[in-house]
Amino acid sequence: MKAAQIAAFGGPEQLKLVSNAPVPAINDHQILIRVKAAGVNPVDTYIRQGAYSGNFKLPLILGSDAAGVVEKVGEKVESLKPGDRVFTARSKLAGSYAEFAVAEENAAWLLPEQLTFSQGAAIGIPYFTAYRILFQKMHAKAGETVLVHGASGACGIATVQIARAFGLTVLGTAGSDEGIAAIKAAGVHHAFNHRTEHYKEDIKNVVGAKGVNLIVEMLANVNLQTDIELVAQNGRIGIIGCRGRIEINPVMLMGKEASVVGVLLSVASDEDMNEMGHVFKAGIENGWLRPVVYREYPLEKASEAHKELIATTSAQGKIVLTI
Amino acid sequence: MKAAQIAAFGGPEQLKLVSNAPVPAINDHQILIRVKAAGVNPVDTYIRQGAYSGNFKLPLILGSDAAGVVEKVGEKVESLKPGDRVFTARSKLAGSYAEFAVAEENAAWLLPEQLTFSQGAAIGIPYFTAYRILFQKMHAKAGETVLVHGASGACGIATVQIARAFGLTVLGTAGSDEGIAAIKAAGVHHAFNHRTEHYKEDIKNVVGAKGVNLIVEMLANVNLQTDIELVAQNGRIGIIGCRGRIEINPVMLMGKEASVVGVLLSVASDEDMNEMGHVFKAGIENGWLRPVVYREYPLEKASEAHKELIATTSAQGKIVLTI
Repeated sequence: MKAAQIAAFGGPEQLKLVSNAPVPAINDHQILIRVKAAGVNPVDTYIRQGAYSGNFKLPLILGSDAAGVVEKVGEKVESLKPGDRVFTARSKLAGSYAEFAVAEENAAWLLPEQLTFSQGAAIGIPYFTAYRILFQKMHAKAGETVLVHGASGACGIATVQIARAFGLTVLGTAGSDEGIAAIKAAGVHHAFNHRTEHYKEDIKNVVGAKGVNLIVEMLANVNLQTDIELVAQNGRIGIIGCRGRIEINPVMLMGKEASVVGVLLSVASDEDMNEMGHVFKAGIENGWLRPVVYREYPLEKASEAHKELIATTSAQGKIVLTI
Repeated sequence: MKAAQIAAFGGPEQLKLVSNAPVPAINDHQILIRVKAAGVNPVDTYIRQGAYSGNFKLPLILGSDAAGVVEKVGEKVESLKPGDRVFTARSKLAGSYAEFAVAEENAAWLLPEQLTFSQGAAIGIPYFTAYRILFQKMHAKAGETVLVHGASGACGIATVQIARAFGLTVLGTAGSDEGIAAIKAAGVHHAFNHRTEHYKEDIKNVVGAKGVNLIVEMLANVNLQTDIELVAQNGRIGIIGCRGRIEINPVMLMGKEASVVGVLLSVASDEDMNEMGHVFKAGIENGWLRPVVYREYPLEKASEAHKELIATTSAQGKIVLTI
């Protein structure tokens, strides 16, 4: 089969199309997916660089997220059958940058007709991470306020859509006019440009002196102390993204009995993943889950897709590979 | 009545004995306690200095914690009667550095005969804070490991006793031989001297590479990054004490899906307080709750007690005033 793989860790140029990769075999509990689109995620670039801990054997087909059609199912698979449209966030054995990918039965879900395959491939890491931080880690409740600090990327848009759908009041920030338009389209109640001097004051003017109940943070090394200042009594700050160290004042966490928690999707249990997959299938059917595809690249241009992902600081949505 | 009060915010010398303070009146749901001993807490010194936010009117009788005998009860009080030995962690209206103090019925609990009044006055803030961070904030479970980072003070010893009684494996640190002896007497399974170079390695040797499940931190401005390094996957770091800022690496919180949470006892609900008071009454009866009184001062020497509390960096237990 065709696949985009790396034979050595390194830059985007290491990502090369091969046409003779073996089609992976499945066991009794797995399905083989004929991939129509694969999601490109920041973690794929970290793995490519060799900067991500894990037991990766070369040559390696990258990619965790995919949408496509079930080609074959294991003998004990009951919920899916050949021909079903599906999406997954956890390709097994080989990655999703390929003509075929494998998933456990409980890590693949029906993709309703409302979404294209490219949109299906855009669910994966962004939506699962967003749901996990909001509900499995921060225990968000309807009626609470949430600030999505950096909302215009794929994960930010996913967070906004999920929070809005579950009854939270959603505040979001972006760094450009295009970003502001994107997060408004995603459903924020209040949009702020985090490149302005006064955006923290603007947020306080909206939520009042009590602060925001929840903050989903995409760049903790820049914003964590600001988050501690903006969060409410008993508030929770969830970290999705961080690129380094930051000085904070923990005394303010004490006075507010506030908490800071991190998330890493790869350690989620199968049960946690399965719960989320079903939430998203329902969300697609109900219309609130609408992944925004920013750009599509054919599989043979995977290295260009990686270059764009790294270069872009304010993408409004998702980069996918089409196969 | 006699009371130790401040007429102006400032140093320990502002704390003066008066003999003509009015005995506070109680409402239908309150009790009047003839105070036998009052706990001296760091927060009392912050309030005295005017460094604590809150609506404090001068002159002010300090103190939240007390043990004594019920003098009088409000008309609707059912669970307590005159003559009962009681302890409280929340003196109302006037403070506990006095011959009489007031508490709500649901914020005072029977003090079993096993403890002296001085020990009863030593429960208050240390034990309630320790229980709150362990169970109401970090959701500690039997079988987990907990590191009490700075365990030889009143709050540290309380944390060790509670964690041990509830089935956790308890690691504690102290900074002197006397401190080590004190935390061993309190029940730690493993003691470490945090003034040695190798104590972090010693801790890892005990708990293994996976790290500790829970950390109760008494000095977050010094130790928080170390805690983030020592904590396990899905671990929780609870901050009881902090005196300033610190640089941390939030990326490690993400990889472990770990959390940091602060505690402030004064915002606990009446229900939370009542739950804890009953836990402690049972703990006294069962023998595991044994407050360590480090030094007793008569009420008229309250200013000296404050001086000692500030000067002491490694007290093994509690300073109380006797009345």
